[in-house]
Amino acid sequence: MKQRLVLVGFGNVGQGLLEILLKKRQELQARYGYEFVVVGIADVAWGTAYNPNGLNIEALLKAGKARQKFSQDLKEWDALTLIKESDANVVCELAFTNLQTGEPAISHCKAAFSAGKHVVTSNKGPAALAYRELKTMADEKGLRFLIEGTVMSGTPVLNLCAGPLAGCEIIAARGILNGTTNYILTQMEGGMSYDEALKKAQELGYAEADPSGDVEGYDARGKVTILANVVMNTSLKIAEVSCKGITGITLQDIEKAKKAGSRWKLIGSIKKEENRVTASVAPEMLPLTHPLAGVMGATNAITFTTDLLGDVSIVGPGAGRTETGFSILSDLLKI
Amino acid sequence: MKQRLVLVGFGNVGQGLLEILLKKRQELQARYGYEFVVVGIADVAWGTAYNPNGLNIEALLKAGKARQKFSQDLKEWDALTLIKESDANVVCELAFTNLQTGEPAISHCKAAFSAGKHVVTSNKGPAALAYRELKTMADEKGLRFLIEGTVMSGTPVLNLCAGPLAGCEIIAARGILNGTTNYILTQMEGGMSYDEALKKAQELGYAEADPSGDVEGYDARGKVTILANVVMNTSLKIAEVSCKGITGITLQDIEKAKKAGSRWKLIGSIKKEENRVTASVAPEMLPLTHPLAGVMGATNAITFTTDLLGDVSIVGPGAGRTETGFSILSDLLKI
Repeated sequence: MKQRLVLVGFGNVGQGLLEILLKKRQELQARYGYEFVVVGIADVAWGTAYNPNGLNIEALLKAGKARQKFSQDLKEWDALTLIKESDANVVCELAFTNLQTGEPAISHCKAAFSAGKHVVTSNKGPAALAYRELKTMADEKGLRFLIEGTVMSGTPVLNLCAGPLAGCEIIAARGILNGTTNYILTQMEGGMSYDEALKKAQELGYAEADPSGDVEGYDARGKVTILANVVMNTSLKIAEVSCKGITGITLQDIEKAKKAGSRWKLIGSIKKEENRVTASVAPEMLPLTHPLAGVMGATNAITFTTDLLGDVSIVGPGAGRTETGFSILSDLLKI
Repeated sequence: MKQRLVLVGFGNVGQGLLEILLKKRQELQARYGYEFVVVGIADVAWGTAYNPNGLNIEALLKAGKARQKFSQDLKEWDALTLIKESDANVVCELAFTNLQTGEPAISHCKAAFSAGKHVVTSNKGPAALAYRELKTMADEKGLRFLIEGTVMSGTPVLNLCAGPLAGCEIIAARGILNGTTNYILTQMEGGMSYDEALKKAQELGYAEADPSGDVEGYDARGKVTILANVVMNTSLKIAEVSCKGITGITLQDIEKAKKAGSRWKLIGSIKKEENRVTASVAPEMLPLTHPLAGVMGATNAITFTTDLLGDVSIVGPGAGRTETGFSILSDLLKI
């Protein structure tokens, strides 16, 4: 049966996803028997389009590239109405991330579950702030709530734990979960000041105009919360994760670490002790021999400590249009 | 439905598997709905036992530990007869690895498929020498031929590619696939001669009395062949993989690399160019900044180069009783 997709949000991730789906249509069908049709799309900037027979993906991508509004199959619907009224069976929630309220994404997810539709998202808001509630809603209706892209983008962290590592108990996890801060620290090691490195990160599009979400550790804290709740099956609140960013790290600190054979990294940590899960985000000085010390630039990495395999690490991209687009595809294939 | 298991081979891996199954029985049932019964076991040293109502796992493990022959539910059957006559639905092929002929393991796999039984194995012989033939036999009968444990033990390499990375094309792979040689090279970097390091590896049980399988690169070559055939869906023969081990590497070479900011590693490589897959095993001098350069001791690692995610690496144990036991469990959960 063809998957019938609705996309909410048509920024980088949505466009990246459609590019992949278009390019790989034949391969996905031949190799995995996967068939899809994009029936709806809603974006505050581009408008809403809906056609139960399928939208024209090329035309959507063209509009996206040209920063023009959609021109075919237009509807006077907002995102919530599209979710409710469309005959899709999967909603891809790709709207902007809000780590304070989780909205409007949380409402999108709830509307989808109420309407009997699966949700796939790379949006950290709902996953970090309301995972347990949304997962329970989905479970009760026999639906999926899949969020691979919320941690390390398309690098398969959550699906690794849910699939290939099933049977192992995960006792602890430590990771470099924010590419922007890792890029800044890498540049500082090359001699740049914090301000220069931040500016360069902004020029490259790694950091936003207001960089606090990255440099204060909030983005990493959201991911740590998601990991704890998904991988350790707990109900940790984002406010329970202690959080310190990299804004206090000076070139002197970097030099001091170098002399000690070490390197600063912003580390997200989770551990389970006597069934209690605690988590934190803070800069740590790691010896150069530590596996995470060698992860440079915008790359992310996470080391899981397990009962049966000891330490298993996965290293890969932590952001990117195609990379995050792939995270959505991989969850779509799971459904 | 309960999985009905037959174990062929009761060495470290077989015993490791039964220890895990025994310890995790409740958890596996509660978390994954997984139930099993071990109905048969055959080992040239321990004998053959069969009971369609289930063997006593505690008693088997006790015999294993005490190096005593089985004493309950004995049968005058060899492994092939057990595979054929038992009412199991899965055969765990855990007999010794032979990279020359693949026997007796290949015959065990064929007998299992002929009898309508799935095969799960960590034995590199059948996977490296007859993967395509066995996979075809399995496919034709709607059976599974699962071999996670043949590459990097329980570290989920093949299941990562088949599951969470599905949708990505893997263009190349490079890895440290043999723990013994990586341990020897690590020791040599600490100043030990090759002979001393090899002796220590033998004392620790990493290397066998005849170490050639490891140090000449044959073990890594077997794994590279498996990876190429499984992950790149090709039909590479083991003899087509060029192979050079670490026996020619001297302390002088190690020093020279150090001075150049590099480190010797035995690297297995696979690449796909214009749909042709080539593979090799050879020592390489990697710059210390290379992600694989930091992988020390008996740890293994592999970096996949993909079309959608760029490089994704997984690092973890490459051997071990519990670790390889887990690889079997993870494939059993997949069935």
